Amino acid sequence: MDLYTLIRDIKDFPTEGILFRDITPLLQDSNGLKESIDSIAEVLQDVDFDLIVGPESRGFIFGVPTAYKMNKGFVPVRKPGKLPFEHISQTYDLEYGTSTIEIHIDAVQKGQKVVIVDDLLATGGTTKAIVDVIEKLGGEVVKIVYLIELEGLKGRDVLQGYNISSLLKY
Amino acid sequence: MDLYTLIRDIKDFPTEGILFRDITPLLQDSNGLKESIDSIAEVLQDVDFDLIVGPESRGFIFGVPTAYKMNKGFVPVRKPGKLPFEHISQTYDLEYGTSTIEIHIDAVQKGQKVVIVDDLLATGGTTKAIVDVIEKLGGEVVKIVYLIELEGLKGRDVLQGYNISSLLKY
Repeated sequence: MDLYTLIRDIKDFPTEGILFRDITPLLQDSNGLKESIDSIAEVLQDVDFDLIVGPESRGFIFGVPTAYKMNKGFVPVRKPGKLPFEHISQTYDLEYGTSTIEIHIDAVQKGQKVVIVDDLLATGGTTKAIVDVIEKLGGEVVKIVYLIELEGLKGRDVLQGYNISSLLKY
Repeated sequence: MDLYTLIRDIKDFPTEGILFRDITPLLQDSNGLKESIDSIAEVLQDVDFDLIVGPESRGFIFGVPTAYKMNKGFVPVRKPGKLPFEHISQTYDLEYGTSTIEIHIDAVQKGQKVVIVDDLLATGGTTKAIVDVIEKLGGEVVKIVYLIELEGLKGRDVLQGYNISSLLKY
């Protein structure tokens, strides 16, 4: 099955000049959803890890079923104000302004091996912030898997030293 | 396994007087995550349906793995401005103010049988808005499943006539 055929290109979203890769046709297709999760799990099959971390909201879409399939726990990284328990934050730069992510302080234990799953590698800023909070809690990021990688944005440059895979490259 | 032991009570979140049921310990526990998804799937095993709809963000957490396990497609209902393709909206009342959800116009086909999965039934307002947009697109809501139901808030009253199940009741 060619997963590329289930990604819809939307011009000028969210702003002019951006070609948005819409994953909703893939999610809506039972075989597309199944194959994308199975392919992420295949990437991880020889990786020794304890849990999966995924960011709100689209990281939940691929991270939770992968954790379910591989019988691991899942830790959500969320936008500010959403996590009810004690948490730490990381603020990072966007093209215009900044953004912040949060993680519960008991979400990752010292020495745990963590996999990050997200839908998209663009500039890498969000992932770098997630790596930072996982490492602050004492976790080790052993693998990062994306459904889609926008190679032209060179997100791998800000994630040097980490083991990265993506299923679909543009 | 007693899933109740994996729900953490947080007092006064998000505002004073609210006892928040925190699902993150359950997600973090590989057996808790597995059993919650398997239990939702068990509720659905004799239900004839075509796809699962879940709202951003926590509906993604339970809806996508259930769709994956049952080999169905998944349709996200999102907050305003997130869906890139043509969509319809529904605005509904909150205790203070209003909220809006959106769904792509090609997400549900006429006559399709739809299951809604979400983490929490509180007042039922969000679910009612989701039901409304699914029915506007011509879909039929055949079942609604929650991880948690706050029975005192009487969410079932605004969803009369729909087939509702919840795993954990408070």
